[in-house]
Amino acid sequence: MTDTASAETLKTAMAEAASEVDEALDALLPKEEGDERKLFAAMRYATMGGGKKMRAFLVLEGAKQFGVGRESALCVAAAVEMLHAYSLVHDDLPAMDDDDLRRGKPTVHKAWDEATAILVGDALQTQAFATLAAPETHQDPAVRADLCLALALASGARGMVGGQMLDMMAESATAPLEEAAIVRLQQLKTGRLIEFSAEAGAILGKAPAHSRQCLLYYGREIGAAFQIADDLLDLTATPEETGKATGKDAGAGKATLLGLLGPERARAQAERLVEQAKGHLESFDERADMLRALADHVIRRRN
Amino acid sequence: MTDTASAETLKTAMAEAASEVDEALDALLPKEEGDERKLFAAMRYATMGGGKKMRAFLVLEGAKQFGVGRESALCVAAAVEMLHAYSLVHDDLPAMDDDDLRRGKPTVHKAWDEATAILVGDALQTQAFATLAAPETHQDPAVRADLCLALALASGARGMVGGQMLDMMAESATAPLEEAAIVRLQQLKTGRLIEFSAEAGAILGKAPAHSRQCLLYYGREIGAAFQIADDLLDLTATPEETGKATGKDAGAGKATLLGLLGPERARAQAERLVEQAKGHLESFDERADMLRALADHVIRRRN
Repeated sequence: MTDTASAETLKTAMAEAASEVDEALDALLPKEEGDERKLFAAMRYATMGGGKKMRAFLVLEGAKQFGVGRESALCVAAAVEMLHAYSLVHDDLPAMDDDDLRRGKPTVHKAWDEATAILVGDALQTQAFATLAAPETHQDPAVRADLCLALALASGARGMVGGQMLDMMAESATAPLEEAAIVRLQQLKTGRLIEFSAEAGAILGKAPAHSRQCLLYYGREIGAAFQIADDLLDLTATPEETGKATGKDAGAGKATLLGLLGPERARAQAERLVEQAKGHLESFDERADMLRALADHVIRRRN
Repeated sequence: MTDTASAETLKTAMAEAASEVDEALDALLPKEEGDERKLFAAMRYATMGGGKKMRAFLVLEGAKQFGVGRESALCVAAAVEMLHAYSLVHDDLPAMDDDDLRRGKPTVHKAWDEATAILVGDALQTQAFATLAAPETHQDPAVRADLCLALALASGARGMVGGQMLDMMAESATAPLEEAAIVRLQQLKTGRLIEFSAEAGAILGKAPAHSRQCLLYYGREIGAAFQIADDLLDLTATPEETGKATGKDAGAGKATLLGLLGPERARAQAERLVEQAKGHLESFDERADMLRALADHVIRRRN
């Protein structure tokens, strides 16, 4: 594919996938009925109809490499988005990043209240594991247990939540973090879930360990590139473009590679990561073209 | 066993089990080291060395009915306590019940801060699923997937978290809840996790569906009795006895059966539930004596 063609094709494919994942979320999340409908409504608000659903797209494209059934892949894609949405709802809380805007809409604690936002995040995390463990997701219970374990390791104290803790601590630290510490923080905070998303298709397809490893490394590199791109967007984009508050990082003393390296070197670093990511796909055939295009996209996007 | 003997034996058995579960938690939770040690320390603080660990005891005693290995049972017992501890840490937050004291110690958000408490709860939930999904917990992945699914269904939007949402809504409601609504609220909020704890041993032991069902029903009845006893304690016990603030329910407009029925009828209802609980154990042999003693204990305890 040419660069232009692939960018257009990717955009269409991501939009189609996002819409399919919204349908899966609609089927998997509790309907807005009964006495708890406030909770259910807020869970749906936090997950459906917004966001690019890049993590879900990674799951779906990873699954394609191994001929995994679409229904299976969609369940896992939806589970990853529930997990991701829970982390955003909690990160946006006043005691955390205190954000009012997310995906162009009021955050859950603004649209409802703090207690609801805490419970929505809690319930979305649970629902992610319920989805992965359910027989509908895969007929082989070993695959389901493997998915639960891999997601838990990626998102818990030694993964995403650990990274969030480091991020909170960095804000109140007296000395800025060094490069190695920032790389580790971001690999935990956003990288580990992107890695899981990339390797989930290989778990579903019971792929050889080497293939699973290649996809995980691919996820690691694009995750790191994605983070740098995110920081650059925070610096240069408008809230209208990103659907969330921008220009906050510098003021909050956020530990970012951009802050440490400056825009030029950070951008060059992101370009290197994208090339490395594509390198991990060398043993994959043309079915991986969309993953290659996504790698290019993560540093070109404007939202 | 006589009543007196069994009460004493039960007390000893519960204390021994709690100590074993603390050892399991010590092995399963991240050590207090590395840059994230603040998170790890608070996770340990919230789970270890406090509480009666009744849910863990239920898992261990349930597992005994089917000759389940002690290591397996302890992993699941520890996972249930992580899940329970996460719910307490989040429930204690200022936006929720706003409690300063838990198990005789400052709550996590008082000992640390709100952001840490949110992350500790999040990470403990994840760690519970990581534990259930790990090969160390059971060699059969079908059992691990089944445990993950059962815990998720018990604790998510249609279980514990849903019940917590109803509880928050009841506090701000204009009309008091009716008996059926209170029973449902409490079955969700505290009952479902106690049910899971009671049935987990049957899942581990791949017991016949009927045995698993009996234990779940046993858990349902003692869970309901436990809640009434808890409400009575809130009314009559001191914070020194319970290790948490007492006398809060009436002021907060909490929806309790006690408030609706009054102490006499509530106590009689709890007695009935305990008899029903023991009835579900009829097909079990003397290995279930401790579960029978526990049923009696839940309404006699002073903390």
